[in-house]
Amino acid sequence: MPSEFTVRRRVEFSETDMAGIVHYSNFFRYMETVEHAFYRSLGFSVVHDRHDPPVGFPRVHASCDYWKPLRFEDEIEIHLRVIEKKEKALTHQIIFRKVSGDRFPEVARGRLVVVCVTKGPDGRMASVPIPADIADKLEVTTLLPPPERG
Amino acid sequence: MPSEFTVRRRVEFSETDMAGIVHYSNFFRYMETVEHAFYRSLGFSVVHDRHDPPVGFPRVHASCDYWKPLRFEDEIEIHLRVIEKKEKALTHQIIFRKVSGDRFPEVARGRLVVVCVTKGPDGRMASVPIPADIADKLEVTTLLPPPERG
Amino acid sequence: MPSEFTVRRRVEFSETDMAGIVHYSNFFRYMETVEHAFYRSLGFSVVHDRHDPPVGFPRVHASCDYWKPLRFEDEIEIHLRVIEKKEKALTHQIIFRKVSGDRFPEVARGRLVVVCVTKGPDGRMASVPIPADIADKLEVTTLLPPPERG
Amino acid sequence: MPSEFTVRRRVEFSETDMAGIVHYSNFFRYMETVEHAFYRSLGFSVVHDRHDPPVGFPRVHASCDYWKPLRFEDEIEIHLRVIEKKEKALTHQIIFRKVSGDRFPEVARGRLVVVCVTKGPDGRMASVPIPADIADKLEVTTLLPPPERG
Repeated sequence: MPSEFTVRRRVEFSETDMAGIVHYSNFFRYMETVEHAFYRSLGFSVVHDRHDPPVGFPRVHASCDYWKPLRFEDEIEIHLRVIEKKEKALTHQIIFRKVSGDRFPEVARGRLVVVCVTKGPDGRMASVPIPADIADKLEVTTLLPPPERG
Repeated sequence: MPSEFTVRRRVEFSETDMAGIVHYSNFFRYMETVEHAFYRSLGFSVVHDRHDPPVGFPRVHASCDYWKPLRFEDEIEIHLRVIEKKEKALTHQIIFRKVSGDRFPEVARGRLVVVCVTKGPDGRMASVPIPADIADKLEVTTLLPPPERG
Repeated sequence: MPSEFTVRRRVEFSETDMAGIVHYSNFFRYMETVEHAFYRSLGFSVVHDRHDPPVGFPRVHASCDYWKPLRFEDEIEIHLRVIEKKEKALTHQIIFRKVSGDRFPEVARGRLVVVCVTKGPDGRMASVPIPADIADKLEVTTLLPPPERG
Repeated sequence: MPSEFTVRRRVEFSETDMAGIVHYSNFFRYMETVEHAFYRSLGFSVVHDRHDPPVGFPRVHASCDYWKPLRFEDEIEIHLRVIEKKEKALTHQIIFRKVSGDRFPEVARGRLVVVCVTKGPDGRMASVPIPADIADKLEVTTLLPPPERG
């Protein structure tokens, strides 16, 4: 089953800036919200990890393209798709949609590249293969083409 | 009916700090989350306000007492109680509880004093009476006594 | 010498909200900025601590009174004063002033109560006396009276 | 003169997360810090703009590659370079370096694409040419090659 996951949330006042819209840095917080909820749906937590040694997924790349602004009290859908799975790394595509009645226009699109790491005996982080019990649950899904701009 | 309102949310990774707990400033963001959800439950939005002129509720005081830390992925209940209603100001008490099975230990307690303002003809903010359609819906509830410390 | 410390900073865009002013939660981040700079001025860091076991200063109370808003690019002075020193706790008063030419009107005033803790053998945090080499450098200063409101 | 600009700042405690490092979203706040300081150095402010109608520079793209983590109290240098200038858009490259004695290892590298907009008579944002008094001060500099990884 292709790996996808969606969460909904409402834009908070503290996430807006004086331009009246969600500050662009907060889209990266939203990306992490859906990413961690996705991991939880797989029975995995980046913090309460039962692997020995525990693994984590720090970012090596993050990006976002912004089509339309989000505003206070907008309800949004944040949709994660695993679009690449390597031995030690994952790439997530994240689609932001605004919930407007029965329409869901895409407002932004992000990408996160994360690497599986663990702490070595010397206390330093080193990349390691994604544990099989996680990797086996991840099936790469197709990259969504960019939205047509009206 | 006494004015109370509760929301639930889960602690996000980006809300923690290097001490491994929710940064103390984020409790003030949480307070606003429940406050705005409470206003929405009354049919009022601090932004999409239909009063003429529109009113807002800037803070003149905010405080928080911290009993226990919150951590990543903790589920929390944020409970607002209107404990004082004046002609132009409201005081909210906000109780933070951690959801732990069927126990809900209180972890922190905040207070927000907000003043009803509108923009005058000169463009400056001035305090005004809370509009009757809002004020009439607000019934002061009793102040919750501090929790017993075990 | 009474313990006081001042830092200057400029308001960032990301610290504003859609009301066009600094979000009220960010004053608590500013308080921590001056607090940590003050500790550094004493040769102490909440993180790179050389005490054995290391100590930290989590907050048990934080509050702020807001007189006037701060806006993007405002230059501000954040002034910390140690107003109470107990065996295991400190209370800091923090004065926020806006730098306007040679005038420095006070815009807000906060208070932080912090407790000295360390991690016990069981891994839990426990309050401990403030180490003498820190405590000896702290001299309580007078509480600043509230500003006259014009 | 090629358009470059550098600011220094120290990592704040509230910018770290429970992994003990600066949360990846905060690099985007840092990018904005140097961007706005750069505009100020040109006599321009995204807020206190004297153009008629006022212009702003919302982001259409933001990205960051992370080589090494930043930690609390690290002193960092944030270096902006204008690497593309179009009629209505600018691309900034942003280099993050950690100040370690007389070494300045690069820790991350970002990119911001911003579009010049103004509010049209209908109240909607529309892209417009960058005003000549700003554009004339911007000279594109060479793209910095990626750092060698040791």
